[in-house]
Amino acid sequence: MNRPGRTTTLRVGVIGAGIMGADHANTLRRAVRGAEVTAVADVDLARAEAAAEGARAYDDAFALIADPDVDAVVIASHDSVHAEQVVAAVRAGKAVLCEKPLAPTLAEGRLVLRDIGSTGEALLSLGFMRRFDAGYMQLRQAIDDGTVGPPVLVHNISRGVSGAPNATSEFSITGSAIHEFDVVPWLLRSPVVEVSWVAPRRSSEVHEGLQDPQLIHLRTADGVLSTCETFLNARYGYDIRCEVVGETGAISLTEPARVRLDAGRRHGIGYAADWRPRFADAYRIELQGWVDSVLAGEPTPLATGRDGVAASAVAEAVITSMHHGGSVTKVEQ
Amino acid sequence: MNRPGRTTTLRVGVIGAGIMGADHANTLRRAVRGAEVTAVADVDLARAEAAAEGARAYDDAFALIADPDVDAVVIASHDSVHAEQVVAAVRAGKAVLCEKPLAPTLAEGRLVLRDIGSTGEALLSLGFMRRFDAGYMQLRQAIDDGTVGPPVLVHNISRGVSGAPNATSEFSITGSAIHEFDVVPWLLRSPVVEVSWVAPRRSSEVHEGLQDPQLIHLRTADGVLSTCETFLNARYGYDIRCEVVGETGAISLTEPARVRLDAGRRHGIGYAADWRPRFADAYRIELQGWVDSVLAGEPTPLATGRDGVAASAVAEAVITSMHHGGSVTKVEQ
Amino acid sequence: MNRPGRTTTLRVGVIGAGIMGADHANTLRRAVRGAEVTAVADVDLARAEAAAEGARAYDDAFALIADPDVDAVVIASHDSVHAEQVVAAVRAGKAVLCEKPLAPTLAEGRLVLRDIGSTGEALLSLGFMRRFDAGYMQLRQAIDDGTVGPPVLVHNISRGVSGAPNATSEFSITGSAIHEFDVVPWLLRSPVVEVSWVAPRRSSEVHEGLQDPQLIHLRTADGVLSTCETFLNARYGYDIRCEVVGETGAISLTEPARVRLDAGRRHGIGYAADWRPRFADAYRIELQGWVDSVLAGEPTPLATGRDGVAASAVAEAVITSMHHGGSVTKVEQ
Amino acid sequence: MNRPGRTTTLRVGVIGAGIMGADHANTLRRAVRGAEVTAVADVDLARAEAAAEGARAYDDAFALIADPDVDAVVIASHDSVHAEQVVAAVRAGKAVLCEKPLAPTLAEGRLVLRDIGSTGEALLSLGFMRRFDAGYMQLRQAIDDGTVGPPVLVHNISRGVSGAPNATSEFSITGSAIHEFDVVPWLLRSPVVEVSWVAPRRSSEVHEGLQDPQLIHLRTADGVLSTCETFLNARYGYDIRCEVVGETGAISLTEPARVRLDAGRRHGIGYAADWRPRFADAYRIELQGWVDSVLAGEPTPLATGRDGVAASAVAEAVITSMHHGGSVTKVEQ
Repeated sequence: MNRPGRTTTLRVGVIGAGIMGADHANTLRRAVRGAEVTAVADVDLARAEAAAEGARAYDDAFALIADPDVDAVVIASHDSVHAEQVVAAVRAGKAVLCEKPLAPTLAEGRLVLRDIGSTGEALLSLGFMRRFDAGYMQLRQAIDDGTVGPPVLVHNISRGVSGAPNATSEFSITGSAIHEFDVVPWLLRSPVVEVSWVAPRRSSEVHEGLQDPQLIHLRTADGVLSTCETFLNARYGYDIRCEVVGETGAISLTEPARVRLDAGRRHGIGYAADWRPRFADAYRIELQGWVDSVLAGEPTPLATGRDGVAASAVAEAVITSMHHGGSVTKVEQ
Repeated sequence: MNRPGRTTTLRVGVIGAGIMGADHANTLRRAVRGAEVTAVADVDLARAEAAAEGARAYDDAFALIADPDVDAVVIASHDSVHAEQVVAAVRAGKAVLCEKPLAPTLAEGRLVLRDIGSTGEALLSLGFMRRFDAGYMQLRQAIDDGTVGPPVLVHNISRGVSGAPNATSEFSITGSAIHEFDVVPWLLRSPVVEVSWVAPRRSSEVHEGLQDPQLIHLRTADGVLSTCETFLNARYGYDIRCEVVGETGAISLTEPARVRLDAGRRHGIGYAADWRPRFADAYRIELQGWVDSVLAGEPTPLATGRDGVAASAVAEAVITSMHHGGSVTKVEQ
Repeated sequence: MNRPGRTTTLRVGVIGAGIMGADHANTLRRAVRGAEVTAVADVDLARAEAAAEGARAYDDAFALIADPDVDAVVIASHDSVHAEQVVAAVRAGKAVLCEKPLAPTLAEGRLVLRDIGSTGEALLSLGFMRRFDAGYMQLRQAIDDGTVGPPVLVHNISRGVSGAPNATSEFSITGSAIHEFDVVPWLLRSPVVEVSWVAPRRSSEVHEGLQDPQLIHLRTADGVLSTCETFLNARYGYDIRCEVVGETGAISLTEPARVRLDAGRRHGIGYAADWRPRFADAYRIELQGWVDSVLAGEPTPLATGRDGVAASAVAEAVITSMHHGGSVTKVEQ
Repeated sequence: MNRPGRTTTLRVGVIGAGIMGADHANTLRRAVRGAEVTAVADVDLARAEAAAEGARAYDDAFALIADPDVDAVVIASHDSVHAEQVVAAVRAGKAVLCEKPLAPTLAEGRLVLRDIGSTGEALLSLGFMRRFDAGYMQLRQAIDDGTVGPPVLVHNISRGVSGAPNATSEFSITGSAIHEFDVVPWLLRSPVVEVSWVAPRRSSEVHEGLQDPQLIHLRTADGVLSTCETFLNARYGYDIRCEVVGETGAISLTEPARVRLDAGRRHGIGYAADWRPRFADAYRIELQGWVDSVLAGEPTPLATGRDGVAASAVAEAVITSMHHGGSVTKVEQ
């Protein structure tokens, strides 16, 4: 039993005080048991200070990593620096929750794993939050329970309101569809072995450099085919769907709205504007699971470094398919 | 104005007294204005008599076609004899509503059109009833109105409870997916120019000769990509879906259930067991539209012979893709 | 069997060429088998001519009733003249479909029944179209089948966009809630024996003379309690709901939309603006059922004159309750 | 800022180790930040020990209250002893979260408030968890925002699978409908001033001593009418609904299912078997809000003792109405 008045606390440093990092700091401070935010780092020190709410602020991620009052690190910095920060933090013996991606390319992701070794891997978790969304968890349970029979097809749809103005067709794959590349093999408990890519008509609402929407096929080792529509600029709302079709039934996510409105000749529910409200609860549960596992010295319930590399390998194969006219492409695992 | 007590009536002969033919005879007799069923033909005379309900019964389709009390013919016989019956009826100067397909193969369909010539074509309607389903009609109107912006993608799903025991992978395309091959270009007002085929994991519930489900891509001339999942043995219900994704929104069919049940810890709606209750109203409206246009001497509002040949051309290209490892295949129009 | 080229036709005269009468004439002419509109009457002759589309036009309902080319009469005139027109038509030996109400008051309705006698009653049908709505028919079938166990409660909601500008609290009962007064005993196969009335907060959007919304309780002889919310000016859409709560489950109407729209951060279906599109199919089926039964010389499948008087008796009791502070009031049957 | 490695923690004692108490202990231990369960009491010591998970176990609630390692107390014991435990805990200067009801009767509830005085009231929170359900919170926000215009009517439905075998008609009011008696004035920000009660047909599935379902009307001071159907033995599922009807629209709770299943000819969502999964998240948020407010020394965001007494006053008036043939009854506030 804990001594009254005192409890074991994980002292967390958050690297990156942008939207995602600030959200994580807030969630850790307000809704996660057993965590304390002791430091925040950002290249913009003022932003770090604002997010720190009185904790230490750094403009240097490596200084935060070295802080003895930081037991564990959340990495929510720019994608391009994830790899070096992960390596540094793991080498400093600190548990790390790194937002996806682990590294900008598959090759670099593999280098990180090689650099940190199996001991380092045990300290590393990847932030694929959909694994902690109540809907996805129920889909996975239903598959395990045989509720719809053995799966034959999975249909994924990922639509956003508006992508980043400079988003490229490749970014749509590595930055958005990568969530499906992680969640599909996690649902099916089977790795993606083959992919292909195809272009629907391009929306005239986006700049010429971006194919939006895109349609991707994933083949997992179990033979199941998964379709993934990724549409960054669907305009109407942030809409994430997943349907698992089995031999005897089908099961799918519902939009997690809690109220229904009748107004202006219409009946229905509202969409979130972006991923943050849609997955707020998934982030909270993910962070709690991470803190609990670190404090207990148990294996992470989150995606691992290897899961992150696997998703990057799928992304790379999809980009290859895109660059080769949609040809069916093997995933190098 | 019609003279009181009398009205112009189209005297219809129905060829084929199976489920579909008997349904059509009943609908014409009970729910279609301006039609009278004066004869029914079937190779099984007893079946013809049962469906005739007192009208003349034939065991020979050509005798029915020759009957002077038959002004117009509905062909709901076996697919293999549609072509010769269409040619005979049209040559006899009678309006024809032929259930899909016009002929078993694309080549034979084209021969029918050549044989009947443009005068004959004006007498011919094809039975693609989805064009008369309230949901599909609203989707088409919404596209025309720009409700969701210009379309970029269309997702079609067609699931049945159980296919015919001897259904082949080719039949799944020519007998079931052909509805999508007609409805997609009709919705988009653009012909299908290119297709490809891919196999999901095969359901272990079906015999080895059948790939079920199947996934088909259609590319229309406007650049829009349409996906078509066809699953004959989905077990859980007869479930037809169509979603049109546009540049600013998406619009989709709803299941046309009229009541919702709360029972046994579940809340929801029921599915039809097959296509007949699902599309009963579409059949009625189609038959009324056909009868009205024939009586008025106006062009058919139904699919034409050319539409039927166009759908067969798509089917043939999809089969070619299937036989060639899913390669992208041009449609010969 | 009918003689080829000819068929028995019911020659219908329509009295009242307002919205409802013109709709009925159109439906009879375009979508009902076995009917012909041979005459239309309206106090405004030009309106009668427009609705007649070439058939005879009268400015005198009694002249139409006397027309030998009119076999049967649809009465869609002003409520205040229904009674006298019904009596005249029935006395002329013509089948009558009278829009609700049969008469402005219960006493007058009873007089009509006395005047026409049992022979006349056999010629009379009342237009309570909800009995022919697919949803209500399925609710009734479900009750008969015991799908939800014996009913204990029925919840009815009837909301419109905007009531007539001069609508009174009494009109809300006799003109709108009367549909529930007919449909509830029809669903439960048990007459309404007791009622009470209560006022929610009055919408500030309506004039002072109108209590809107209203809430009414009906007790049927079987002990079941039915609640009826009537809200003429609900603004957001025409929304008709009915839920039957049984001992083991509940079953309710769904809104009969056929498409679902994703646009502007919302997902959902549209409402009809008023009762005509919502119940268009019910009207068609009701008219077909009426024509079929008259031609066949069979009892009407529609509501009868007695059903109409029963509904008026409920309305009168509800008005009494309203005038007496919501007291529980017996229905005089 | 907290000192690293240490954090302020609220040491909570839980009285009552039944289903509710054990749930609260678990939630506090696993999902609430800033709380520690230092003691559990139950008349059944073994049950207390099981729920304590290593913390101190008592068979005497007053011993737990006196424990210096208990800063705050959750009371989830039998309803009959809430009052004395609340008084004792408050007098000991400890913050209290008491499950509803505060006391078995209105008179006893008022005595508690008199006994503890205003200082004691500041320490007391009542466990009406629906105030922390995301759906109810959004309804309230929508009312505040004028999303549907000023409310005119609220429809509440509360259905369970099966009530306690010895439940009485009075218990249905004080133990179940009391949630609506709290949530309706909280939603509308207006107290209940008048009530009435009416009996639907009694379900034959329940024993004679219980009127189930029941229908209750509440009138709040703002003139809005709220209907409350309470059906303990609805069999089909645990189903909580609330619809707020305003002058320009309506807004209602959706069932918070996260997946939709297609199986066995049906499409839809599942119901919880009882209130615990349905409101699990509301309990967690309520407990977190309570702990945060106690640690911060801020007023409780939960229902207060006065709110609890107000709900009891409504319950008492409803019972009076039930005992007097459903007469409209004033609430003594």
